Amino acid sequence: MAGEVAQDFYNWMQEIRARIELVLDSSLPTLDGDLTGLHEAMRYALVGGGKYVRPLLCFAAGEVTQACPAALDRVACALEMVHVYSLVHDDLPCMDNDTLRRGKPTVHVQFDEGTALLVGDALQTQAFSLLSETSSVLTASQSLALVHELAHAAGSFGMVGGQAIDLASVGQRLPQNVLEAMHRMKTGALLRASLRMGALCGDPLSDEAREMLDVYASAVGLLFQVVDDILDCTENSNTLGKTAGKDAKYAKPTYVSLLGLDATRALTKQLHADAYKATERLGKRANRLRALANFVVQRIH
Amino acid sequence: MAGEVAQDFYNWMQEIRARIELVLDSSLPTLDGDLTGLHEAMRYALVGGGKYVRPLLCFAAGEVTQACPAALDRVACALEMVHVYSLVHDDLPCMDNDTLRRGKPTVHVQFDEGTALLVGDALQTQAFSLLSETSSVLTASQSLALVHELAHAAGSFGMVGGQAIDLASVGQRLPQNVLEAMHRMKTGALLRASLRMGALCGDPLSDEAREMLDVYASAVGLLFQVVDDILDCTENSNTLGKTAGKDAKYAKPTYVSLLGLDATRALTKQLHADAYKATERLGKRANRLRALANFVVQRIH
Repeated sequence: MAGEVAQDFYNWMQEIRARIELVLDSSLPTLDGDLTGLHEAMRYALVGGGKYVRPLLCFAAGEVTQACPAALDRVACALEMVHVYSLVHDDLPCMDNDTLRRGKPTVHVQFDEGTALLVGDALQTQAFSLLSETSSVLTASQSLALVHELAHAAGSFGMVGGQAIDLASVGQRLPQNVLEAMHRMKTGALLRASLRMGALCGDPLSDEAREMLDVYASAVGLLFQVVDDILDCTENSNTLGKTAGKDAKYAKPTYVSLLGLDATRALTKQLHADAYKATERLGKRANRLRALANFVVQRIH
Repeated sequence: MAGEVAQDFYNWMQEIRARIELVLDSSLPTLDGDLTGLHEAMRYALVGGGKYVRPLLCFAAGEVTQACPAALDRVACALEMVHVYSLVHDDLPCMDNDTLRRGKPTVHVQFDEGTALLVGDALQTQAFSLLSETSSVLTASQSLALVHELAHAAGSFGMVGGQAIDLASVGQRLPQNVLEAMHRMKTGALLRASLRMGALCGDPLSDEAREMLDVYASAVGLLFQVVDDILDCTENSNTLGKTAGKDAKYAKPTYVSLLGLDATRALTKQLHADAYKATERLGKRANRLRALANFVVQRIH
């Protein structure tokens, strides 16, 4: 179960990323008319430079249920739109006040605050617009379930709720269970939705398989965050493409500040093992999910 | 066709408003746990003090297609959530920087800017969450069409697009056609969606009836805005429950500044006549729509 990542997986990752970049680009309106400014800023935020983790999770889960790639394109795109809207709003001066994202100036720096606010608002709406288009590869019930899954993950009991707890906890030393609950909402909910929505596009899962996918989602969702916490204090801004050392600077509670670096590394091993075990129960079609878990943990080695 | 508003209509309006207030209140989580702050602020913004114009339009259009009240409750609630999210974001310092709304301090004044940002974000998500819940009174296709209608109206070619044009046009003297295009997006799109979505909850409309409903929507949508422009320069903040005289203060282009008060009043008469004529073609079931048009125009008499 060692965290080995095969060349085949890197090729697949590259292929999905290139594919999603094209789909994202074509999902936004062309630049003409009165709305050029807004659409230009939406494209600036959305296209290029992302790691596209949520699309990758979505496509990997889609392999488990043999989902149609055209359906996964749409879902992956909607997930990335919601993720990017949250980044754009999170970077605003009234939140994290950040100036660097994906190696570029943040949207409110490149344009202005009002534009950044509207870009985030419009990207969220666009995600739901995309998922609710009539489709030849998804039934109305599937599409509606996808909308509901995304809304649940993004809302006040998911991503936005996590951001609210984060906002209220700056400078506080949170106990590990509260820190974990915050991350499960702030980033975990959308990562979990990426997996569930990818799987939803294909054949129905057995109850056991759905449960295993949730176990995997839970472990990998937290793993991403813990790895991010480690990278934030061990890497520089140039490598990350976003401001490094931000957690310590703003006295944000992190796993590293709470447990120390060694215990945090040990936690990543445990989470990786949990994720790995879940994929074994899902069989051969979960190969990509397994490789993804290896890939995440390898970022800190 | 004079703008008379019968007592029966006032009673109906009161009844729908009271009903929607209850539904809105029960659509938000109770105040406990880690998210008390966020949910309290969402409730502060959403419940109480609104005119509930979008719910009223939704219910009035639902009468045309004999829609089920339980379906209309849900749709009206989602519409109001999107409207309120846009107000909360529009009031932020980086947009209109307003301090008074619905007779209360705006959300960022009562709480803080970060909270106001998240309240708007979460209310938008909650609207889509609500519309995508499985329902015994709406088919999956109907619910999906409702999601799409709302997303289209709220997105970059609708409400948010209109806000972007508005943001870019402060201090400019816009020609009437650009001003109209801006309002058709900024407020008209959601008002039109209120009517279309209300009708969507019931029996299918004939092509002609759908067209008439769109004609009505187009006229009444603009009528609301033109009346608002008149009230902004003739009434005080106390009467309006929001800051009066704001358009002139921020050199915002309005119908009054463009055409003068008399020609603007004449325009309201024309729009009212257009709306009225459309309802006549829709027959008796459009009585509420007709009364609503009368009610809007009566606010300036």
